[in-house]
Amino acid sequence: MNTLKNDTFLRALLRQPTDYTPIWLMRQAGRYLPEYCQTRRRAGSFMDLCRNPHLACEVTLQPLARYDLDAAILFSDILTVPDAMGLGLYFAEGEGPKFERPLREEWAIRNLAAPDPGVELRYVLDAVAEIRRALNGSVPLIGFSGSPFTLACYMIEGGASDDFRTIKTMLYDRPDLLHHVLDVNTKAVTAYLNAQIEAGAQAVMIFDTWGGVLSRRAYGEFSLAYMRRIVAGLKREHDGARIPRIVFTKGGGQWLEEIAAIGCDAVGLDWTADIGAARERVGGKVALQGNLDPSILFAQPEKIAQEAHAILDAFGPGSGHVFNLGHGISQFTPPEHVTALVDAVHTHSRKQRQA
Amino acid sequence: MNTLKNDTFLRALLRQPTDYTPIWLMRQAGRYLPEYCQTRRRAGSFMDLCRNPHLACEVTLQPLARYDLDAAILFSDILTVPDAMGLGLYFAEGEGPKFERPLREEWAIRNLAAPDPGVELRYVLDAVAEIRRALNGSVPLIGFSGSPFTLACYMIEGGASDDFRTIKTMLYDRPDLLHHVLDVNTKAVTAYLNAQIEAGAQAVMIFDTWGGVLSRRAYGEFSLAYMRRIVAGLKREHDGARIPRIVFTKGGGQWLEEIAAIGCDAVGLDWTADIGAARERVGGKVALQGNLDPSILFAQPEKIAQEAHAILDAFGPGSGHVFNLGHGISQFTPPEHVTALVDAVHTHSRKQRQA
Repeated sequence: MNTLKNDTFLRALLRQPTDYTPIWLMRQAGRYLPEYCQTRRRAGSFMDLCRNPHLACEVTLQPLARYDLDAAILFSDILTVPDAMGLGLYFAEGEGPKFERPLREEWAIRNLAAPDPGVELRYVLDAVAEIRRALNGSVPLIGFSGSPFTLACYMIEGGASDDFRTIKTMLYDRPDLLHHVLDVNTKAVTAYLNAQIEAGAQAVMIFDTWGGVLSRRAYGEFSLAYMRRIVAGLKREHDGARIPRIVFTKGGGQWLEEIAAIGCDAVGLDWTADIGAARERVGGKVALQGNLDPSILFAQPEKIAQEAHAILDAFGPGSGHVFNLGHGISQFTPPEHVTALVDAVHTHSRKQRQA
Repeated sequence: MNTLKNDTFLRALLRQPTDYTPIWLMRQAGRYLPEYCQTRRRAGSFMDLCRNPHLACEVTLQPLARYDLDAAILFSDILTVPDAMGLGLYFAEGEGPKFERPLREEWAIRNLAAPDPGVELRYVLDAVAEIRRALNGSVPLIGFSGSPFTLACYMIEGGASDDFRTIKTMLYDRPDLLHHVLDVNTKAVTAYLNAQIEAGAQAVMIFDTWGGVLSRRAYGEFSLAYMRRIVAGLKREHDGARIPRIVFTKGGGQWLEEIAAIGCDAVGLDWTADIGAARERVGGKVALQGNLDPSILFAQPEKIAQEAHAILDAFGPGSGHVFNLGHGISQFTPPEHVTALVDAVHTHSRKQRQA
């Protein structure tokens, strides 16, 4: 059973009444925090930090020490799964993630196999368990993974891309090959998330960072269909508690109805969506998570509060809203601006419930 | 009066009956064409090419010599206006456009003034006139400009950006300053497009490349409102012919109804929108232009034809569709694939009308 001191986040995801609107921030353990940068320097590389359960736990807890956040999220990378498949993840300084061995040849694609999370991704599960112990029931812990399509983008392009030329050429010319990659990724992500749940994750989120670069039809076939399979394959309960599932496609605002229909409990919104209109579109089907433009955190605290109020007011009364940014927090965010945001969300949403 | 041999494009923009669906491609005069690269080398830099009316005319006509396209578009850059304002546009090799003197200080913003298109942008108007003569009534010529917000993004950031941190900080903290920039840009773009119309442009398009990075409210206030003012300020007729106005916000698929309501004749769609659903949403208000994913041109010709048919079928029978890509054509496109696309659009859309 859930013995959490603060289960507001889990209740909001399940659209149960809450005293206020819970808040957490994508990438809340990150470079905008000086204490994160210190730990990161001690660890060595970014992947050294991810692979060290002690240090991963340390940075996971840092934002919770500073801010009154309603959830913790496992500190890890979305690309641990393809790394465990042997593609050789690395981070070139000042650039995004890259793979030493991008997946391009048919023989390599045919040889691709889902890793055993208990073996190749043991360090993640150890981190989950250690964080759960350290949290000591204060707030819930979120586990996560990249979506099959998003993982495939990096695996096939070999890194970030501005046109996704390689994967899109495969998508249109050799859909059979891409479907094979996505099938393996789906099995891998399902096993990975279930292992995180067993290790202690109390909610899980699928990050579909790149699904929004597809046409509507291609999105349905190559991204959403696989996320649906994952959701269907996840443990619904663990240790007597429901495990809510959040799905987030950046740039997916046009496809909300379809995303809300895959069986997830909550849908993440980027900041281009109007959360009031989104709530009307998905009706009572799912909770919504979002959706402040992370750039608003560069503005002055009064302005931050004003924009947070506008989102809370647009969502309106009733439960089913988890406040968040519409994308990961920027490394250039002044840390004290996050305090202003968290306070604004908690205070205003309590007032809303008293009105 | 219009004495065009092929006015299919203009008729489709005005939702008049046509024998087939017209097609042109954003950035159709560009690096994927070897003949463009040759002219470009002769010209020197990209801006030397833009500033030379003879050569700008030459590259404008190149795709029309190769393909059975239904419109020509002025070869120029979206940033000619801020360049004419004195910001010093340049292109660093392998990078996007940059400004030597980004607009950041309040005094510089207060001093910003709209250029006289007849003086500072004479080279563009000369190119328009020369292209019109060279086209000799074969197909219509499209004039264009960047939107006030998109110009402001480059002017304030000093170049492309992945988070638009500087302009968004200004947007939230000093909206008065940004509104001033947008006001000057709006006057400048209106005068520039009207001058292009007087020089011979038979349709005009506003490219809002970056409006889609805003929240819905910010988009309405800082991008769409200014495009509405431009549309209201454009000459509706010239030389006895209607001058259709196309507005394109990349990433604006969630805001179609609002875009369609600003008084333009047509709305451009990127490839994430379902054109059938878009047509239902905007009703008979405007024509639609789009919306093939440019990456589909990397696929084999049969696949290209199949995807083009799917878009034509999704739009359905009746007029009011101009076929295009959902974004500029990639420099990596095999030129012969464009032939396959143009043929597929013309052939299939003629068949649709016979059904």
